[in-house]
Amino acid sequence: MKKAIVVLGSTGSIGRATLEAIDNQKEEFQVLGLACKENLALFAKQIERYKPKYACTSNASDQDRLPSHGVTWLTGKEGLKEIVRTEADIVVNALPGSAGLDATLEALREGKTLALANKESLVMAGRLIRRLLVEKGAKLLPVDSEHSALYQLLLGTAREEVAGLIITASGGPFRQHSKEELQRVNPEQALNHPTWKMGRKVTLDSATLMNKGLEVIEARWLFDVDHGRVRVLVHPESIVHGLVELVDGSVLSYLSHPDMRIPIAYALNEGKRCQSSFGKMDLVHIGSLTFYPPDMERFPALRLAYEALASGDSATIALNASNDVATSAFLDGRIGFMDMAPLIEETLTHHPRIPVVEDAETIWEIHRWAGHYAEERLRRLNG
Amino acid sequence: MKKAIVVLGSTGSIGRATLEAIDNQKEEFQVLGLACKENLALFAKQIERYKPKYACTSNASDQDRLPSHGVTWLTGKEGLKEIVRTEADIVVNALPGSAGLDATLEALREGKTLALANKESLVMAGRLIRRLLVEKGAKLLPVDSEHSALYQLLLGTAREEVAGLIITASGGPFRQHSKEELQRVNPEQALNHPTWKMGRKVTLDSATLMNKGLEVIEARWLFDVDHGRVRVLVHPESIVHGLVELVDGSVLSYLSHPDMRIPIAYALNEGKRCQSSFGKMDLVHIGSLTFYPPDMERFPALRLAYEALASGDSATIALNASNDVATSAFLDGRIGFMDMAPLIEETLTHHPRIPVVEDAETIWEIHRWAGHYAEERLRRLNG
Repeated sequence: MKKAIVVLGSTGSIGRATLEAIDNQKEEFQVLGLACKENLALFAKQIERYKPKYACTSNASDQDRLPSHGVTWLTGKEGLKEIVRTEADIVVNALPGSAGLDATLEALREGKTLALANKESLVMAGRLIRRLLVEKGAKLLPVDSEHSALYQLLLGTAREEVAGLIITASGGPFRQHSKEELQRVNPEQALNHPTWKMGRKVTLDSATLMNKGLEVIEARWLFDVDHGRVRVLVHPESIVHGLVELVDGSVLSYLSHPDMRIPIAYALNEGKRCQSSFGKMDLVHIGSLTFYPPDMERFPALRLAYEALASGDSATIALNASNDVATSAFLDGRIGFMDMAPLIEETLTHHPRIPVVEDAETIWEIHRWAGHYAEERLRRLNG
Repeated sequence: MKKAIVVLGSTGSIGRATLEAIDNQKEEFQVLGLACKENLALFAKQIERYKPKYACTSNASDQDRLPSHGVTWLTGKEGLKEIVRTEADIVVNALPGSAGLDATLEALREGKTLALANKESLVMAGRLIRRLLVEKGAKLLPVDSEHSALYQLLLGTAREEVAGLIITASGGPFRQHSKEELQRVNPEQALNHPTWKMGRKVTLDSATLMNKGLEVIEARWLFDVDHGRVRVLVHPESIVHGLVELVDGSVLSYLSHPDMRIPIAYALNEGKRCQSSFGKMDLVHIGSLTFYPPDMERFPALRLAYEALASGDSATIALNASNDVATSAFLDGRIGFMDMAPLIEETLTHHPRIPVVEDAETIWEIHRWAGHYAEERLRRLNG
């Protein structure tokens, strides 16, 4: 029996890579459902090709312009929950931003296997997700290259042998920029990532290192470790994705070409490595692997993420929500590159702190509060 | 109950590091027996300090000059077998060269846990050792840093997921020497290793890359893989010790400071990592990890090891025996650095090839034949 897969966010970079990984194992997998928000031209092609039983769009009106092939159409936020509740074996959540949280929670409540690329889910609701995993017997496999690396390295390792976890950061396009140069960075420059091809928001988050900050929070919840145990190393080659420090002084590490199809295939196969042509790695060709400490002064977003994690659950929600506002404002040309962090920091400072948040309603309340607060500050700044 | 440990070759570099690892876990281990060949001054100190129940020397006459403390004295080759047959839980075999084989076979026949640093055991008798491991239910943990690395990386990995194994080589002191420069190398230069402090024979083997060749053969038997699946990468920093290539294109690797106490402690704890002060690794401080292909033209010993492995069991025995002769001759100033490989190659070419050798008697016969043949050639060359 082929495993039935639902891909949420099928037209984004992770969604497209997921479909390529499925193409590589046609005997193993079939596409049961696809969900897309904006890129309807590509979505039409995907429906033609994969003939999914279910498809979901943001608006019902979009569905008239798409091929049908006996598709059962679902719509909007409710549609995303419905497509998760179908007979899917595996749900790939590659939705961008906070829009991915509800689908994550729904997949876990349904006891599905969840291949999770939406990092905001764990940043906003890590504690709730851990509880659901235990209660519902669901399975969560990370799709980020860094977290897939740590997941795999931790398999053969006893918990008490682990001294610390390290995720790597390419350092982004501005790794060697001075503070003054960073202030002058424009959106076009920020959207040009040196090693990974990704969506706009995550590319910008990579340039500020906020993406790495969100990943530290993600790792804290995925692997249930104290936040002080998750460190970041800048590694411009993007070959080593994660490292596990052991109590005897040795270190395990996971290397691969920066190709998202590798961790996606690992997640789809629920922890089995399968033959692929996704790029055999040749260290001789790569030649040299280098490592640097992250600079939290030039890249304050990473510092803010650590501070939020230390502060508690409400702070990581506020961090994420205010970062959404800050990144949009930068991309719209309303603020400069170095103005994003102060806006986030101010939101963190003023948000009503709740160390333990375990219900979706409170999560969304804090999320909305922080978004409004940041928008408000922004208006006053630009006022 | 503390585990009772016998250390064979206690005054050598691995023996001394083993005693330091035991010192670090005094609650876990006690020294039951020690065996030493030459360094009697240090052996006397070790007996004073660890008060072993059993001690073994090459000659009975040495024992009069050593402290006693109620030690039961054992002597020579038979003494090594007897000390292995005592109530030891773990035998650390750090004997140098072919002298280590009998103790390895005896430990396995007795069903002991064997921490094996004597690589010649596997080079000479890999097939027999694999059979004894299955038949006697013994346990073998490698003490080489490269093989300990692979052993640990393979723990969480299914066999069918492994595409290949890589062990690293520092490249030795002559990594960047031309062939002409290599011909002029003298013993003093060859005994000065850039990253590891080891005995004379293994240091010279590192300079010719024969040590890496022997380790390729060792890996073939330890992990029961086809010899074509074990590769060598030159890695001057000696931080990455082993890598496992997986079928999905990703690679697992094991890193540590070049400190033998780390793999020794892992073996003594039978696969458990324990807290130690043996050196936390800091990749930022190390900065850069580099990788190069080995040059089999300038370092033909590695090519010869691969050829021997492809040829069969008798060839690896002959390789090792003729290498013993060649390295002694170089250290004694009888031949040049680049004269060692031709002597070994000639022995390999002329030895009576037996692809499968599974009994100790035949192993020793081939070993002696190859040693004599190489000595004879050497006499004629120098004649």
